[in-house]
Amino acid sequence: MGRQHIKQLLTGLILLFLYAQSYAQKDSLFIRKIYDEALLRGKAYEDLRSLCKDIGPRLSGSSEAAMSIRWSEQKMRSYGFDKVYLEPIMVPHWERGNPETAWITLPNGSIEKLTLCALGGSISTNGAMEGELVLFNHLDDLKKASRRAVEGKIVFINQVMNAAEIQTFKAYGACYPIRGNGAIEGGRLGAKAVIIRSLGLPSDDFPHTGSMKYEDSIPRIPAAALSTRDSDYLASLLEGKISIKLTFEMDCRNFPDEPSFNVIGELKGSKYPNEIITIGGHLDSWDQGEGAHDDGAGVIHCLEALRILKTLGYKPEHTLRVVFFMNEENGNMGGKSYAKWVKEKNETHIAALESDRGGFTPRGFGCDGNDSVYRKFTALEPLFKPYDLHIWEKGGGGVDIGPLKSEFKDITLFGFIPDSQRYFDFHHADSDVFESVNKRELELGAASISAFLYLLDSKVF
Amino acid sequence: MGRQHIKQLLTGLILLFLYAQSYAQKDSLFIRKIYDEALLRGKAYEDLRSLCKDIGPRLSGSSEAAMSIRWSEQKMRSYGFDKVYLEPIMVPHWERGNPETAWITLPNGSIEKLTLCALGGSISTNGAMEGELVLFNHLDDLKKASRRAVEGKIVFINQVMNAAEIQTFKAYGACYPIRGNGAIEGGRLGAKAVIIRSLGLPSDDFPHTGSMKYEDSIPRIPAAALSTRDSDYLASLLEGKISIKLTFEMDCRNFPDEPSFNVIGELKGSKYPNEIITIGGHLDSWDQGEGAHDDGAGVIHCLEALRILKTLGYKPEHTLRVVFFMNEENGNMGGKSYAKWVKEKNETHIAALESDRGGFTPRGFGCDGNDSVYRKFTALEPLFKPYDLHIWEKGGGGVDIGPLKSEFKDITLFGFIPDSQRYFDFHHADSDVFESVNKRELELGAASISAFLYLLDSKVF
Repeated sequence: MGRQHIKQLLTGLILLFLYAQSYAQKDSLFIRKIYDEALLRGKAYEDLRSLCKDIGPRLSGSSEAAMSIRWSEQKMRSYGFDKVYLEPIMVPHWERGNPETAWITLPNGSIEKLTLCALGGSISTNGAMEGELVLFNHLDDLKKASRRAVEGKIVFINQVMNAAEIQTFKAYGACYPIRGNGAIEGGRLGAKAVIIRSLGLPSDDFPHTGSMKYEDSIPRIPAAALSTRDSDYLASLLEGKISIKLTFEMDCRNFPDEPSFNVIGELKGSKYPNEIITIGGHLDSWDQGEGAHDDGAGVIHCLEALRILKTLGYKPEHTLRVVFFMNEENGNMGGKSYAKWVKEKNETHIAALESDRGGFTPRGFGCDGNDSVYRKFTALEPLFKPYDLHIWEKGGGGVDIGPLKSEFKDITLFGFIPDSQRYFDFHHADSDVFESVNKRELELGAASISAFLYLLDSKVF
Repeated sequence: MGRQHIKQLLTGLILLFLYAQSYAQKDSLFIRKIYDEALLRGKAYEDLRSLCKDIGPRLSGSSEAAMSIRWSEQKMRSYGFDKVYLEPIMVPHWERGNPETAWITLPNGSIEKLTLCALGGSISTNGAMEGELVLFNHLDDLKKASRRAVEGKIVFINQVMNAAEIQTFKAYGACYPIRGNGAIEGGRLGAKAVIIRSLGLPSDDFPHTGSMKYEDSIPRIPAAALSTRDSDYLASLLEGKISIKLTFEMDCRNFPDEPSFNVIGELKGSKYPNEIITIGGHLDSWDQGEGAHDDGAGVIHCLEALRILKTLGYKPEHTLRVVFFMNEENGNMGGKSYAKWVKEKNETHIAALESDRGGFTPRGFGCDGNDSVYRKFTALEPLFKPYDLHIWEKGGGGVDIGPLKSEFKDITLFGFIPDSQRYFDFHHADSDVFESVNKRELELGAASISAFLYLLDSKVF
């Protein structure tokens, strides 16, 4: 190689280096603009306030859910997205009815009131229901129990979420079966009803609702969650082997499925308009609290992420779409329908991201992509160093976007990961209200997702 | 090298590797025990509740500060530390007196009430004080102002904390001079009084107090902090160039210095009893709120860190000492006295750690040590990976332990770094109450400090 060639090569390398540098700097500067917009001129907090206070909880099939669909459509239009539309779906319709009441009767005849709530989908008690309580400390103990020990009684499963587990979603996952399957296991052995310890970490007086299942071949029995504080108390009584009667009343009802909608807004891609990147959360919530962290924060994160890109005049290469999914909590009809619908429309979906872990300080993202995508994903980490995002892990997605994976085998799913320590203080409980969300933490989440979306669009895909 | 030697070398290397492995595993297991103790059987949350609710705010020289000293001594004794004792110090004694009142009079004669509080150390207004307001948006603008523009008026400095700054302590640091020096700069130009925008990030109705200074050669004028919401409102009025009068009354008084104490507890070192590692926070707080995050959380973190090691039967190599410093907020007499006192006693201090950034989810630690210590410090990171601690940065320490650096030139100072996003919602305001601290976040902080202290003792020094 002659001197001339070496010189050319060196010049080329220097130019490449400078180009790469200016490229990275361009990204850094744009990400800084995104965070500035979120933190200085952000709409996330006031939008969440409106969703929580002007509407409130939004259980599928409720009139508040219908209100929230109109609210979302209007909000997306007001932000000037290129296209805003609804996708019709059918959703279950369950109602809690009158507030639940419950008390125990001790052997000496004295009574004490308890705080419980129906699990979502439970049948009613048909007036007051009374029965002797039988305690199990784990779902497995109930499964192993004899019919004689359970039949005609009210089963109380006091399986405690493991507070020593640092990743609170793991502690939740380990206890989830008592909520999902408690009524099936109790019903199989002839129990009258099942009461579970609330799936919450703190000791307090808020029962946590959530979905539960029945099986066709097994008698359906009422299912409720007792507050953690009352659960500790009741378990301590029952461990003393005294006989305790529970009387409780739940008024819940199932109605026929109702028409509802996913709400969709998008910015059209300038280069690859037919390749779609979806971000979303779920618009529905349980009927307790205001669905502030679960998942008001998630839909507002994604709305704000797209609003920021639009406001900053960003012209996406791919079509960027925000979806407010309906019915994640009790059926996932929004997520399932969306995946089928876009497949039928012959759309090309290359990536999707979900935010459904609350509005807390961002810690990072998860990615379920192949090695090549995962390498590009982890290469983004330095750009987020100034924002303290440090989790760049394998795995990701969410309940709403999960079904896309079956329809598009090459799609990459991403999950937004905020700090999880406070999530199970509020999840599915009356405490999940707007006031439990911190403004800066919410805004930082929206900014992180907006910046990440920008990079997915401009760098990763 | 013969085959025999190679075999010996390999065997040696394998043994070394296995030894290192089992060593790291031993650490991992013990750290897991520490976190289990904090999260499953922890005392931190109930101790903080007692400090905040049974005692309340603890300003130096107040009777609550004296109560808190007795409380702390008793608490340390109840945990069976090897030695518990008090270090006598002298502290300033300032009182807010009756609650402040303030209102503005608009040109049309209508009045509106404002929410402000005296800055700590301010003189009183001697009954109601009235004056025309003059607005500055930055302390530098006041410094450059003419005497004519300021003399006889009440200066209002509406310097806004930068919400776009991700590291909230930096945003605080940038505005700190308006609180520290506002009265000096105003007094220099003949102002009647100075009102600053509260050093807080959210828009709300809680004024944030904090220390301020006078200079001997400059007339002393009253100094107060106005809530951020009222500051925005007042600034918007004053930008309209209308003339607005402020009337306000502050009843504060300075008293002669009072005797007080640092509270000290320790576990004696088994190998190097004369080499001391200090961890601490400050027991005093401002007189607003309950000093829950600032710095109830910090002293409870350190108390719990030592309690856990004691409870787990750990025998430290060095003497581990927890210090509850008095008077960090307005004089730092605790920190200054401690450094001198231990130097006079000829003690050897090798390291100190402070927790004074609130009781939020732990993110990591800072270290101001030399290269060799810093390398050992960063080598700890993998042990904290399961606990999501990811900041291992240069720099560290705190106001209380800072003076040790002048007395012991080889000492390494460490700082505990929790998430900072919510800190300036509460700092020095009525909102800094027990309820603003999350149980798990507090416990994780205590566990992180306890594990870190164990590693400092057994690995780093």
